[in-house]
Amino acid sequence: MRIERLKAFSDGVFAILITILVLEFKVPEYEPGHLLTAAINQWPILVAYLMSFLYVGTLWLFHHDYFDTIEFTDTALNSINLAILFSITLINYPTSLLSETVSTGNQADMRVAFMLYGFVALVISLLFEFLYLYVGSHRELKEHTPMPEAFYRSIKYDPIRSVVIYALAIVLTYFWVPIGALLILFGIIFHFVAYIRLGRLKKQFLRD
Amino acid sequence: MRIERLKAFSDGVFAILITILVLEFKVPEYEPGHLLTAAINQWPILVAYLMSFLYVGTLWLFHHDYFDTIEFTDTALNSINLAILFSITLINYPTSLLSETVSTGNQADMRVAFMLYGFVALVISLLFEFLYLYVGSHRELKEHTPMPEAFYRSIKYDPIRSVVIYALAIVLTYFWVPIGALLILFGIIFHFVAYIRLGRLKKQFLRD
Amino acid sequence: MRIERLKAFSDGVFAILITILVLEFKVPEYEPGHLLTAAINQWPILVAYLMSFLYVGTLWLFHHDYFDTIEFTDTALNSINLAILFSITLINYPTSLLSETVSTGNQADMRVAFMLYGFVALVISLLFEFLYLYVGSHRELKEHTPMPEAFYRSIKYDPIRSVVIYALAIVLTYFWVPIGALLILFGIIFHFVAYIRLGRLKKQFLRD
Amino acid sequence: MRIERLKAFSDGVFAILITILVLEFKVPEYEPGHLLTAAINQWPILVAYLMSFLYVGTLWLFHHDYFDTIEFTDTALNSINLAILFSITLINYPTSLLSETVSTGNQADMRVAFMLYGFVALVISLLFEFLYLYVGSHRELKEHTPMPEAFYRSIKYDPIRSVVIYALAIVLTYFWVPIGALLILFGIIFHFVAYIRLGRLKKQFLRD
Repeated sequence: MRIERLKAFSDGVFAILITILVLEFKVPEYEPGHLLTAAINQWPILVAYLMSFLYVGTLWLFHHDYFDTIEFTDTALNSINLAILFSITLINYPTSLLSETVSTGNQADMRVAFMLYGFVALVISLLFEFLYLYVGSHRELKEHTPMPEAFYRSIKYDPIRSVVIYALAIVLTYFWVPIGALLILFGIIFHFVAYIRLGRLKKQFLRD
Repeated sequence: MRIERLKAFSDGVFAILITILVLEFKVPEYEPGHLLTAAINQWPILVAYLMSFLYVGTLWLFHHDYFDTIEFTDTALNSINLAILFSITLINYPTSLLSETVSTGNQADMRVAFMLYGFVALVISLLFEFLYLYVGSHRELKEHTPMPEAFYRSIKYDPIRSVVIYALAIVLTYFWVPIGALLILFGIIFHFVAYIRLGRLKKQFLRD
Repeated sequence: MRIERLKAFSDGVFAILITILVLEFKVPEYEPGHLLTAAINQWPILVAYLMSFLYVGTLWLFHHDYFDTIEFTDTALNSINLAILFSITLINYPTSLLSETVSTGNQADMRVAFMLYGFVALVISLLFEFLYLYVGSHRELKEHTPMPEAFYRSIKYDPIRSVVIYALAIVLTYFWVPIGALLILFGIIFHFVAYIRLGRLKKQFLRD
Repeated sequence: MRIERLKAFSDGVFAILITILVLEFKVPEYEPGHLLTAAINQWPILVAYLMSFLYVGTLWLFHHDYFDTIEFTDTALNSINLAILFSITLINYPTSLLSETVSTGNQADMRVAFMLYGFVALVISLLFEFLYLYVGSHRELKEHTPMPEAFYRSIKYDPIRSVVIYALAIVLTYFWVPIGALLILFGIIFHFVAYIRLGRLKKQFLRD
């Protein structure tokens, strides 16, 4: 099976998810004449939404660039991709928890929200690792693509680094929420750096 | 009419449905400081969402592979496809009922939720049977496709098996909810197996 | 400008609208152990959803077949198409009103809901009339399409018939709700018949 | 990287956003038998929805026409485009505030809603300015497109005019809400005029 429809379907899921995240932004409850204060107090929703938009957006860019190196798909790859999409749509849930708990400010609840966010992120990276291992060891999926096998070998364990970052974030959040939150943010920015790096690597391997 | 836009439209509906299922996951009501317990108590939503994601995902893979063997569409096929998409979007409703009733734990309500889930699944499989019969008996829809007529004959009554599974699930749920729930889960996994089988069958008929 | 992206964008809006209509189906409020009665009492939602799904689905089929006869687009056609899409997304609102008011059963409220449904339908048909007139009188939009100008002349005033049906439905709903409801249903079925007729007409003109 | 998937992804986000805006339209709370008054009182939702639909629709047309002059994309352009899409999805929030506050009629709250609407619009135009500057100064993105560099130079600072309009709207809203509201509406209509102008300019540069 050619991979075009898998890519189109994935693009669709990414586009929808990134757009419905905005549905979190609802009119706040407010006393007549005090909308300004109520709206300003919604800043945690903006921050959480911005963070998840950046996260999902980067995952899309990444997914996009990676699958461009693959030409065929099979049952296993379809299933792994569905599992990845499933885990990514889950982000909607800890995003809600995060904006809710930061708004109310309870430490114990914020801890739960950040740990769950980190957990979903960890699962996503773990599933990407599965993807890398599967694609790396199945030559027939990329038969006519110009990418050499060395490319797949060189990035083989990349998602593991993200898994470690998020595992650390979950553990540290348990002890001190701010450091865990920072680590999750660092993980998301790390994805963006990894996306840029993947682009460079692809160019380099094509030149060699 | 060429079938490309029918496929693209269907892909769109599948992608949207599978993504909005996640909107079920809302911030639970909780006492400040007790989000953890409240979040853990939401496990039925996760299970119901996972089940429906697997179901809709498999239906997409299946729909995808099956329509790849068709080249043209007509008014009747467009209508059957719309009816299939309609029945699939309905899954959203029993999924909500299921996560709600398993959360509250009332046996009578859970029975209703599972029976309705089984009923929607039964209707979906019944409409797929219509699709198979219609496509099987209209040679002009697949004029230039390499698939022999024997392929369509060999799978002609396949969806009937799913109809039987879900009918049984509905009846048994009435007497004992867990056995009915298991049968529905079995039905969904059965779809996945059928999807893999369809892929093998297509290859085999193309080889012969 | 080529018309492909206009078609893809419209398909996207149709696919999303038809799928989010299902979000009307929410878990009903119910006493523990009485979900069955509560779910059965939701039949007006099912009927309203089924009706609007059929309506939007038919509009999509129609839109699809009609735009297949056009090759280029310009600013005016883009604007008319956006206006059509806008009016079609509005259907979501009277659909909600309809399922709500039929559930509560108040005659005066049902009258408002059906009249609003008819009004939105009337606006949609009126905008399609604009589309027909504009496309019919702009030869450069269909320069390389095989469709003769006589085709566009022969269907020039077709949407006016739907406008009349819905205008009649609005007026009659004011006096007796059931007859207005039936007329709206008739109007939707009429669209489906018109869609089949359009297909036949296209074939006939291509043959001549 | 070819720009096709960026365009398809953006189209998806536009199509979804423009359709979910309609979810604002909910059944109003009403006394049985008084739906008509309640529905009529919802006119601010219709106006706000119409305004945002027009705004997002025009942005789509614009985005569409502008990106048709670009052939390749890179990391920076992908990021700028994601930022633009992010800011556009935010429109959903001030649209809700606007319909809510105009319904209740409190002057202070309406001022907040209109200022926020203007602010989001200002950010969108500012990001479009970044887009213009980046694309204008990166020749390699449009290597094989027929558009001369003079075209990009001639439109280089166009979005700045919109930024000024919205900045003015925010300031004037602070003093008198109606004048600010009118300016925002003017800004949106100005986008539509700019879209038509862009089409003419493209044709003119291709002719020269």
